[in-house]
Amino acid sequence: MAPMFDKLALIGIGLIGASIALKARREGLARRIVAATRRQETADTANKLKLVDHCGTDLAAACEDADLVIVCTPVGACGEVAKIIAPKLKSGAILSEVGSVKQAVIRDMQPHVPAGVHFVPAHPIAGTEHSGPEAGFPELFEGRWAIVTPLPDGDGVAAEKVAEFWRRLGSMVEFMAPDWHDKVLGIVSHLPHLIAYTIVGTADDMAGERRSEVIKFAAGGFRDFTRIAASDPTMWRDVFLNNRDAVLEILGRFQEDLFYLQRAIRWGEGDKLFELFTRTRAIRRALIDMKQA
Amino acid sequence: MAPMFDKLALIGIGLIGASIALKARREGLARRIVAATRRQETADTANKLKLVDHCGTDLAAACEDADLVIVCTPVGACGEVAKIIAPKLKSGAILSEVGSVKQAVIRDMQPHVPAGVHFVPAHPIAGTEHSGPEAGFPELFEGRWAIVTPLPDGDGVAAEKVAEFWRRLGSMVEFMAPDWHDKVLGIVSHLPHLIAYTIVGTADDMAGERRSEVIKFAAGGFRDFTRIAASDPTMWRDVFLNNRDAVLEILGRFQEDLFYLQRAIRWGEGDKLFELFTRTRAIRRALIDMKQA
Repeated sequence: MAPMFDKLALIGIGLIGASIALKARREGLARRIVAATRRQETADTANKLKLVDHCGTDLAAACEDADLVIVCTPVGACGEVAKIIAPKLKSGAILSEVGSVKQAVIRDMQPHVPAGVHFVPAHPIAGTEHSGPEAGFPELFEGRWAIVTPLPDGDGVAAEKVAEFWRRLGSMVEFMAPDWHDKVLGIVSHLPHLIAYTIVGTADDMAGERRSEVIKFAAGGFRDFTRIAASDPTMWRDVFLNNRDAVLEILGRFQEDLFYLQRAIRWGEGDKLFELFTRTRAIRRALIDMKQA
Repeated sequence: MAPMFDKLALIGIGLIGASIALKARREGLARRIVAATRRQETADTANKLKLVDHCGTDLAAACEDADLVIVCTPVGACGEVAKIIAPKLKSGAILSEVGSVKQAVIRDMQPHVPAGVHFVPAHPIAGTEHSGPEAGFPELFEGRWAIVTPLPDGDGVAAEKVAEFWRRLGSMVEFMAPDWHDKVLGIVSHLPHLIAYTIVGTADDMAGERRSEVIKFAAGGFRDFTRIAASDPTMWRDVFLNNRDAVLEILGRFQEDLFYLQRAIRWGEGDKLFELFTRTRAIRRALIDMKQA
């Protein structure tokens, strides 16, 4: 198949950027693939691993002549990156990104997007607890969802091109409005991560000097949380700060529900516990039926 | 190797009982293995699956002449079961159980244990989100911890026999005091389960009519919680009601920590988030170093 793009530029070359690079090259999606990242050390690693044709530290220079530019930095950096690279974006180029939050990223990036450049936000729901360029692997997006959130006044052809790019990376694609994306992801991803971070911290504090004992018996359920709570700190700090309203709303509901259970435990109301536990079991079954488990 | 016991009786034949039966037979740990369960339907299933030599519904009768009796019911039923089987326990027999809570189970069972019968509580930290006799498999305990919590005035030889039995089932064995067991398990297992149940319920409520969309994107973190929240409702209701004090204490700490993060998100205090997220990542590494991940 002919390459979709002549030049692909990745700004940021962590887990996501590196995985895009590896898979895009394997599939021949672009004739040239370059990357840029702020830290020299990261660029050196990317070059050593031969993730792209070249990785530098000049973000703007990397975007010159690129047909598709994908910003793969933590969401808190997206606005600043857009500002830096804007002067070098060529007319007709597509600018995309991969942030876990959409409304805030659009708010931060869009003002810098030059006329004639098509801005198409997207979000691959894929990742591991590892980060950095060494963590990338080409199969990361295989069978995972990528959500494309086109802007209301955006170019339909560019949006479809980004969608097709993600399909060729192995993803299933869904289009969604940015606000709805932020709500759904708040539920299925941001709240679970926040809870996992909290519980691992609480457990660690409580264990105190007998920490090794807690770690020893982690298979009892705790272990699943530690994996999630090992996700990239910078990425997740930015997610929570940038999807604040949705996260706080969901968190309020969660707290309410948790207090309800806490009270049921205190007063020995087993029926309330049993009722919820039966319902959540059914939800797992629905997930299995939809082949998402 | 010679069988450790002439007759092994399992009271309750769900995931744990069935897995003990299958592995004990495979290893030749007892000459005869019988089981009993209250529901005729469950007994029929156990017999159909040939899990044991015979499974009936008369709990006391099954214990006749048994050298080792293991109660494998939800912890809330342990006291009543002990009362029922006590008259048939032979002198010198070992009575054990597998509950996820130790203090409450000892409180409920011990008064019924006849003189001359050695009561040795134990807890295999192993399980899946499936339950019932069909869910059992002989490898369940392979490489997993089994905690034995001998009573202060209990028989040391009997305790060592129970420990050896679990080692032969494939487990690594640790001895622990019952109150410390309940605290550690509250942290590594009970709290994580309670949180998982809550979050899955909250997500389900919030999703409302767009439930299928939430399920679709569950890979974002939510999925890990649904597995835990699919665990047996009766078993877990009993765990929370019977480890109430430890769970409420841990839950209080968790709530405090969660409010701290909630406030940090509201006020945009990214450093507080980053600090915790960095710490929890290190905990995951410790887990990996201890080969528990």
